[in-house]
Amino acid sequence: MNKVLPDKVINRLTLYHSILTDYIEKNIEYISSPQIAELLHIDNTQVRKDIALLKYKGKCKVGYKAADLKSLIEDTLKFKNLKNAFIIGAGNLGMALAKYDNFEAYGFNISALFDNDPLKIGIKVNNKEVFQLKELSNLAVKHNVKIAILTVPRAYAQEVTDFLVEAGIEYIWNFTPAVLNVPSTIQVWNENLIGNFLQFTVNHVV
Amino acid sequence: MNKVLPDKVINRLTLYHSILTDYIEKNIEYISSPQIAELLHIDNTQVRKDIALLKYKGKCKVGYKAADLKSLIEDTLKFKNLKNAFIIGAGNLGMALAKYDNFEAYGFNISALFDNDPLKIGIKVNNKEVFQLKELSNLAVKHNVKIAILTVPRAYAQEVTDFLVEAGIEYIWNFTPAVLNVPSTIQVWNENLIGNFLQFTVNHVV
Repeated sequence: MNKVLPDKVINRLTLYHSILTDYIEKNIEYISSPQIAELLHIDNTQVRKDIALLKYKGKCKVGYKAADLKSLIEDTLKFKNLKNAFIIGAGNLGMALAKYDNFEAYGFNISALFDNDPLKIGIKVNNKEVFQLKELSNLAVKHNVKIAILTVPRAYAQEVTDFLVEAGIEYIWNFTPAVLNVPSTIQVWNENLIGNFLQFTVNHVV
Repeated sequence: MNKVLPDKVINRLTLYHSILTDYIEKNIEYISSPQIAELLHIDNTQVRKDIALLKYKGKCKVGYKAADLKSLIEDTLKFKNLKNAFIIGAGNLGMALAKYDNFEAYGFNISALFDNDPLKIGIKVNNKEVFQLKELSNLAVKHNVKIAILTVPRAYAQEVTDFLVEAGIEYIWNFTPAVLNVPSTIQVWNENLIGNFLQFTVNHVV
């Protein structure tokens, strides 16, 4: 699939994937688009349109075969295409992400964490070691890591980013509230938790 | 402002807000739309369109007054309208969110955390206490809390959600990878970290 998938479709496909995982765990073989739509409180037409993009057709009256649809989503979103990533900052958020159950199932391999706190160096979180930040350049080359997940405090975000760019990192998943100043060759994904939550509350919470 | 703002606009406005905070900290009085656009690697026209929605006009050649634009964004996104929220699950992610610097600046007051682990009950994180989950119903009424931030392991997500709904919670910010089954009166915002990251990698990471 070489066509660019819209962000919202990718987001929904991962939610469908999570639902399919549940169904398969419960040994339920088939799932229908209205079942998916109801769980997500979205429109059935939307679900069918998304799944049509995968070129998968359900069977009349029984719906989609859960296992088939699940692996089709995995192919489309390239879960089998393993990508190495580093976590920068071994605070609570870095630790939480290092422990996140399902990263590997989705094609992400967290190779290591980095921090400057001497007390944290050498600790292992979920079998991933915490290294000194200055060791990052060497390890990035050694393990072919181009993705960094940034979880440092806002005050250090830009300084650490400059270092990451210098070290050859090309993709930054930014969990800090700072907007990072990077060369145009570097891709930043601003996780922007506050923005996400405000999307939810501004329009919905009274 | 009663009009519903598109999610993407809200998201960008919070990023502009972060940039404006930086400028003001550095005592820079004015900012132009190309400066914002360049930092975010987006189009200048987009920035101007978003800011036009706020009915704010910059001055020719000097741009927008940072402080004015910042407080206009705060009004639009209702940062002054304080909303109480509970964090459910005092693991690494719950702790990280409880420590998150800026929640209050954005109108969120985390009143307390909840967990079932006896070792965690009574701990204080960033001045917020960890309570037993069973105390949630009473405290939700007492502090008028309708928002819950869910950070429990996936295996407990549905069970805890049922309990939250029973306890009168109306809005759930779901950080678990599980899709929650809730009545249609309950609003769920799926943070869906994996989906967010995949939006980034599927289309951009080679």
